[in-house]
Amino acid sequence: MTKYTIGIDYGTDSVRALVVNTENGKEMGSHVFHYPRWEKGMFCNAAGNQFRQHPLDYLEGLEISVREALRQCPEGVAGQVVGISVDTTGSTPVAVDREGTPLALKPGFGENPNAMFILWKDHTALKEAEEINTMARSWGGEDYTRFEGGIYSPEWFWAKILHVLRTDRKVREAAWSWVEHCDWIPALLVGDTDPLKLKRSRCAAGHKAMWHQNFDGLPDEEFLVRLDPLLGGLKERLFSDTYTCDVQVGTISDEWAEKLGLPNTVSIGAGAFDAHLGALGAEIEPYYMSKVMGTSTCDMIIAPAGEVGNNLVEGICGQVDGSIVPGMIGLEAGQSAFGDIYAWFSKMLMWPVDHVVARLQDLDEELKEQMRRETSEQMIAELSAAAEKINPEESSLLALDWMNGRRTPDANPNLKGAIMGLTLGSDAPGIFRALIESTAFGAKMIVDRFISEGVRIDGIIALGGVAKKSPLVMQIVADVLNKPIKVARSEQAVALGTAMAAAVVAGVYASVPEAQAAMGSGFETEYHPDPGMVSLYASRYQQYKRFGAFVEEEINHSTA
Amino acid sequence: MTKYTIGIDYGTDSVRALVVNTENGKEMGSHVFHYPRWEKGMFCNAAGNQFRQHPLDYLEGLEISVREALRQCPEGVAGQVVGISVDTTGSTPVAVDREGTPLALKPGFGENPNAMFILWKDHTALKEAEEINTMARSWGGEDYTRFEGGIYSPEWFWAKILHVLRTDRKVREAAWSWVEHCDWIPALLVGDTDPLKLKRSRCAAGHKAMWHQNFDGLPDEEFLVRLDPLLGGLKERLFSDTYTCDVQVGTISDEWAEKLGLPNTVSIGAGAFDAHLGALGAEIEPYYMSKVMGTSTCDMIIAPAGEVGNNLVEGICGQVDGSIVPGMIGLEAGQSAFGDIYAWFSKMLMWPVDHVVARLQDLDEELKEQMRRETSEQMIAELSAAAEKINPEESSLLALDWMNGRRTPDANPNLKGAIMGLTLGSDAPGIFRALIESTAFGAKMIVDRFISEGVRIDGIIALGGVAKKSPLVMQIVADVLNKPIKVARSEQAVALGTAMAAAVVAGVYASVPEAQAAMGSGFETEYHPDPGMVSLYASRYQQYKRFGAFVEEEINHSTA
Repeated sequence: MTKYTIGIDYGTDSVRALVVNTENGKEMGSHVFHYPRWEKGMFCNAAGNQFRQHPLDYLEGLEISVREALRQCPEGVAGQVVGISVDTTGSTPVAVDREGTPLALKPGFGENPNAMFILWKDHTALKEAEEINTMARSWGGEDYTRFEGGIYSPEWFWAKILHVLRTDRKVREAAWSWVEHCDWIPALLVGDTDPLKLKRSRCAAGHKAMWHQNFDGLPDEEFLVRLDPLLGGLKERLFSDTYTCDVQVGTISDEWAEKLGLPNTVSIGAGAFDAHLGALGAEIEPYYMSKVMGTSTCDMIIAPAGEVGNNLVEGICGQVDGSIVPGMIGLEAGQSAFGDIYAWFSKMLMWPVDHVVARLQDLDEELKEQMRRETSEQMIAELSAAAEKINPEESSLLALDWMNGRRTPDANPNLKGAIMGLTLGSDAPGIFRALIESTAFGAKMIVDRFISEGVRIDGIIALGGVAKKSPLVMQIVADVLNKPIKVARSEQAVALGTAMAAAVVAGVYASVPEAQAAMGSGFETEYHPDPGMVSLYASRYQQYKRFGAFVEEEINHSTA
Repeated sequence: MTKYTIGIDYGTDSVRALVVNTENGKEMGSHVFHYPRWEKGMFCNAAGNQFRQHPLDYLEGLEISVREALRQCPEGVAGQVVGISVDTTGSTPVAVDREGTPLALKPGFGENPNAMFILWKDHTALKEAEEINTMARSWGGEDYTRFEGGIYSPEWFWAKILHVLRTDRKVREAAWSWVEHCDWIPALLVGDTDPLKLKRSRCAAGHKAMWHQNFDGLPDEEFLVRLDPLLGGLKERLFSDTYTCDVQVGTISDEWAEKLGLPNTVSIGAGAFDAHLGALGAEIEPYYMSKVMGTSTCDMIIAPAGEVGNNLVEGICGQVDGSIVPGMIGLEAGQSAFGDIYAWFSKMLMWPVDHVVARLQDLDEELKEQMRRETSEQMIAELSAAAEKINPEESSLLALDWMNGRRTPDANPNLKGAIMGLTLGSDAPGIFRALIESTAFGAKMIVDRFISEGVRIDGIIALGGVAKKSPLVMQIVADVLNKPIKVARSEQAVALGTAMAAAVVAGVYASVPEAQAAMGSGFETEYHPDPGMVSLYASRYQQYKRFGAFVEEEINHSTA
């Protein structure tokens, strides 16, 4: 009997379910469900960097995406599904009650953004992250940030929890515990979301919650209380053990088996973050940097524990045993904005269409709306086509890619983007190209840091929307990094990696590398550095670093 | 009998003729003629910063603008015109033959941009300007740049001449001499353009051609030949004397009297640059900075010779006895791009409309063109309205206004613009406001330089398109400078000042201040600094200076 697994991939805007044949990785059916409340901008405030998601968006998406994906499969496949694993964005925690129910699902909290999942890119906890960093370095005990790159981010678990506890009394009083999105969905499928029982993800806990074997788990109660007495006692209502993605958290509940149209024997795997399972899907191997290139990037490396286990890499997001591939140290870094920068510039260019054209009186409203929509849809493709024709030697433009702060190396969420070299002849495609180059320079900063800290990089594997869609970006990144880049073939590498994990969880394969070997879909393209561009960009990169050093000093000075 | 004068004002895009009653300054008639070849972009190459104007654009404009302006006047006015003066942009030199005819008017040169007037903003002579600067400092003799701010600009007379002599053999062989636009038109009206006889403008020669009484005129032959043997002998075919704007160069020729419909008794005044005569029109007085605020700015101060005559102000464009008001030292500075920066940003935002919308298939072509035109026309007004609502305290954006290099203080045409503080929330109006602020900071750099060099500034008088049209820009400049700004009432202050000069030339008044007192039209608005903004901008200005210092060092480093 052929066995199938399902990878459920919760992204920033939508959830995808993918049904995979475990024998060969063949993708049998898939469906994408866009979060309806999120799509309307509900519960968010972009100007204040508040990004929240309602649990109903996830619940509706779970049921619909899986059912629709199964509907595409030949008859009989649903009955032969043996495992489900789940990946999500992260750190995306939510306040839950004693039963593990997100508060937003409870009466009185349905419209309260603080009772919802706090999306990875929410930056409301800037101040709390700073306090955690200060405390970690000054309290006299263990620096709990040291396996997370030495700098705690406002995008992470404790900063977000503390921010909500401080700012929302109602949520504070009702929150018995806190759960990551990637831990809640598997628990839900198993039918028991008790915060004390549900199996927490190693990758979420290790990279975002300052969990580490060396600390016997989460940070000390004393540390947390010193940070804020509001955190007192919470540790006991969280967790001490964590689980890698090859671990079964249980078997699907009858309720969910019925809802999804699956046998009630399906194994449910421990959750993990999307990027990490994407790295599996794109066949990560030791010392190959796996880059998930989308709105932001996640740059991952795995290495045998014996080789880097005790060498902490300064200023990256973290290094955690088993966080990517069980049995290997997973090292993670990333850029806090990548494709988001292209989207930002494109959106800025929409201003005349959104504001000036919108007020022109003689034009038909429907035509204006059609034009607005089509222009917005085609903008990035048109900018890319024009930017591709630019000879970078003739451009004086140089940008910094910190429009959403900097995640690695050396996290600094206060940093901001910049452009220099503007002339009266600078045009939109020229600036767009400089922005692309800046994101490539940001990528090189991360690669350089790994190398200077003694972690070699033998090659680059790319996946994610930008990797698949933009040859221009990929060529520039290859030229700047001066390394060839292989692009994973699968259109849904993250969900595929999650399905691979599910195959291990269900016992189809004994280990992740075995599942990868059987189920991997290989690579579709390889970008090779253009030697002429390599030397030009090497010199621009030096200028990028000087520009960055200036801007960072200015911003640190003005925020000090 | 009431006497009338005509001011003819050659701007960058058009020429305006204004007929004025000398008794009270009343504007009787005016007409603007747009240069037809220039409007089509002929002979220019914006990417290469080459901007040339055909003499036929000027000739056609002279005849049509004056005739049309007179046609608006009551009957009899034309017969009572007693003087004409002319202002032009500058330095705008042209190669001429032995008779003073611009080469572009001769067979075989009609399509050659090097045989045309080289417009002030042409930057093709970057290299030659650098050589002049190096030579002036190193040749062992007089530093001829010292009355022009110590740094010779590629926008000026000798750099442009040398560039053309080097790059165009045909023009080199045919060019007997060179003439500024503001000298050629008066000579033409008088009917004798002999390069050895025509009266050269003090302001053009003193500010742009390194002419000074202390040097007995133009730079030494030895200096010029050392610069390049191609310049050998040219000095003898140029001039040694110069004339202020109150001097008559002659009486109108019968030919031109007939062409324009004027008596053949009309006095023709020595020409001058538009900004200088604009300062007259806007009633400049000692220690009031007169700012012509348009695409670029020209910032002028006059002071009694005894008070600043021997104190050279470092790094400004120049100081020349009588260059603005005869009998006073005229000091000139300016920003090489001002309104041009707003126009540049607006044009960049047009990219989607020009490129993306243009390709949408289902839209009617005529509608697209209408939309394009209307959007372009309304862009700056809409951006300004949105930018006005921004609280600058909430903005992190800071820009450098060097998109066209920096003219003063300390000319550096290699400099380029920049923006820092960009976030994913930065939008078009926010950036537009930062660009406005940057131009105000650039203005403050000039004011500060005058003050630090011992030239006090008692107040600011503004004229020009931006001064009249943009309350937002004017308020920000007042806040940044922390000085009140009076805006001249006349809609055509430059042409009015030129008509004032003509009234002195024709003997209606004995001096420029007398003509100003009788013919001035006063001020329409006064902008007062907002104390809350003053302190905010004072701190941003410090950051602007640090940002500027970094960018300047980077650019000097990379161009060295």
